This record gives sequence, structure tokens and C-alpha cells, in this order.
Amino acid sequence: MKNVLIIGLGRFGCFTAQKFNELGMQVIGIDADETKAGAAIPYATKILIGDCTNMDFMKTLGVNNFDLCVVAIGDNFLASLEVTSLLKDLHASYVVSRASGEKEEKFLLRNGADYVVFPEREMASWTALRFSSEQIKNYIDVTEGYAIFEVTIPKDWHGKTIGEINIRSKFGINVLGIRDAQFPMNVTMDISPSSLLPVDGSILVLGPTSRIRKVFHL
Amino acid sequence: MKNVLIIGLGRFGCFTAQKFNELGMQVIGIDADETKAGAAIPYATKILIGDCTNMDFMKTLGVNNFDLCVVAIGDNFLASLEVTSLLKDLHASYVVSRASGEKEEKFLLRNGADYVVFPEREMASWTALRFSSEQIKNYIDVTEGYAIFEVTIPKDWHGKTIGEINIRSKFGINVLGIRDAQFPMNVTMDISPSSLLPVDGSILVLGPTSRIRKVFHL
Repeated sequence: MKNVLIIGLGRFGCFTAQKFNELGMQVIGIDADETKAGAAIPYATKILIGDCTNMDFMKTLGVNNFDLCVVAIGDNFLASLEVTSLLKDLHASYVVSRASGEKEEKFLLRNGADYVVFPEREMASWTALRFSSEQIKNYIDVTEGYAIFEVTIPKDWHGKTIGEINIRSKFGINVLGIRDAQFPMNVTMDISPSSLLPVDGSILVLGPTSRIRKVFHL
Repeated sequence: MKNVLIIGLGRFGCFTAQKFNELGMQVIGIDADETKAGAAIPYATKILIGDCTNMDFMKTLGVNNFDLCVVAIGDNFLASLEVTSLLKDLHASYVVSRASGEKEEKFLLRNGADYVVFPEREMASWTALRFSSEQIKNYIDVTEGYAIFEVTIPKDWHGKTIGEINIRSKFGINVLGIRDAQFPMNVTMDISPSSLLPVDGSILVLGPTSRIRKVFHL
């Protein structure tokens, strides 16, 4: 992907512009509101002010020349749906639209979106799981039913090696990393059976969500 | 964690309530707006209508009895800051507050928040990386500098085993899973040197973000 068109430059659109820019992509941003558009200036090759629900304006953009179009409109679902649909009519190659829930997702997918993202839902889900137990330091959804949890090391594992405890065969989970309590930025990801589990610190484990919750009493 | 108080029942608050409820926790939700509060009824043990920036109302809640308080107010930063600060004054044990950016985070942490979450920023970051290359099927941030990418399998790896290619020693990355193209819900996470890489499908690889981007030309 080389260039991206971002429509809607509120919080989500602006952060998206910033990140795409960091990744070395050309970013063109559009908003109807001049103040919002201004906030994205440092992260964009070009900023336009205009109403993307207007077909004539949209036609001037050459949307089919972009590798990716992101509809980042957050609080006006009709506008989001219209823009998504217009992009498809104008042969945009790949359209990612923002939704606030499943109902919106359905209509966006039916009307031109290739992919739908849900900022609030994803983060809500993470927040709930992350803070559902004091043992959980971090939580990452990997795929249906599988997750990575960063958990405090159980007391009876302290000072033992991964091979001694036989974590993989015994519990059916994988240790991916060990984080040092003294130097928390320091995560050892080079794990072998001889890796030692410290008294302090935490481990990153990957496995079926239900099994991890059971093993670590989460 | 057993019980959680959620203040603000917009999209983020409501999704958070739902997820905590699924995890078997007692959820008490509060919003000043009756309509918003109503949406969270299916996911809460109790719903209250009230203004949490009001100290007298807050005193009636016994916030120190909750394992966790979530300030999920999204669009009124002053209210979010006031509620966070009041919770601390009333000895709430752990306060998670929602912010839209770093500036807000600073003041929330200074005024009582134990942890700050950023739904739009996190999702924007994910969206940009996920769609920055056609080879990327999924992207998961693990810890500073390390990530899991789900990528299409390079052509010259097709039909070979992980041991034959010697992925770990040669590239310094770990294959965590193989997703079948025919049955995409089916991810084999039981990986060994004899695991075969199919012609179709994708693999989940863990390693330093920069190294993965280089190996797979992302």
C-alpha cells in the first residue's frame, strides 16, 4: 500500500493519519470542518476541506487512484454510509469503514465497505478482560478462542525452569516471553526449556483462553 | 475482581459493561442520561441515573466497596477529570479512565486514574498497520517492539515444513499458528518443526516488528 485517503479527521481519523504517515505512506485527509482538518496537517501530504457526501466533490478526488480509503466518520452514521457507498460507486479499490456496533457493520458491508472496524467495542472488550483479575498484566486476543495473557508468575513456579515445570505438555500452553520486574521494558522472547522463571516479574503465555484462565485462576 | 462500577454508559461504557458481565462480574452502571443508562440494563446488576460530578451523589455510592471503577465518559473531558478525582478522594481502590490522547492521559493520571485507556488511538494504530500491506491479514501488538503478524505464506515456503525452512534460526521469528484457507476458523496452534506450510492459507508469526516487516516485505 502506498497511498491512503482518510475521510473524517476526528480523533480516530487523525490518529490513523499519524500512524499511516509513520509507516511511510502518502496520506490525503478530508474533513468538512476546517478546525478538525487542521489538526491532521502534520501527518498528511495534503488536506482538503469538503463534504464527501456530495457526489460532485467526490468525483474530483480520483478515489480509484488510492490503494486504500478509510471512512473515519464517527458520529454521523448516515454520512458514513453515504460516503462508503459513494466510494464503491467510484471504484475505490479497498474501503475500511468505522462502525459503533454490529447493526452499523451490516449496512456498511452491504453498501461498499470491505472491512469494518469498531474502536470502542474492541477497546471495551480489552479493558474488561485486562482488569477482570489482578493477576492479568496484559491481554491480547489472537484468534477465535486463543489469546496471549501476561500474568504474574505463580508462586510454585518461582526459580524453576520452563522445562522443569513442563508447562507445554502439562498445561497445553506456550510461554512466549518473560518480563523482568526490575526492568519492565525488558522482555526476553528467546524462550527455551532452560529459561528460568524469576521470583518477580511476569510471563506472556499463549493458548486457549479458557485453559489459561483455569491454569492461572483468572 | 468481583464487582465493577462503570460511570458513563455510551458506546464504550456499554460494551465494557457487556464484557464484564460475560466474565461473571457484578456490574453497576451510572449515567446522567436516562436513555443511555437504559441501553446497559441487560448487562448490569443495577443501573443508576445521576450526576457523578456531584460529590453528594458520589458519596452515596460507596465507591470504596468496588474492586474497580471505570470512568467511561467520552466527550466531556472536564467531567471525566472531575469524576476520576472524586473517585480517588472517596478511596476507590482502582480507577481506569478513558482518554482521547496523551494530554488528557497526563491530567487523568495526576488526578487519580491508575490506568488510562485510549479506544480511538489504539484502534487507529491497529487499522493503519493492518492495512499497510496486502500481505498482512492481522496484526497484534505484543510488547514494545514485538508483534504478531498474520501474513500470507511466501511462495518459496509452500509445501515445506517449518524445520526444513529453519524459520526460527534463520530469521529469528517464531511461527505460532497456521490458518487453513479452506476453513479459516481453523487455526493450528500446535506447531512443531514437522508442521507443513500449505500452498494456501496464512501463518501467525511472532518476533521483532522490524524483522517481521523485513522478512515478509511488509
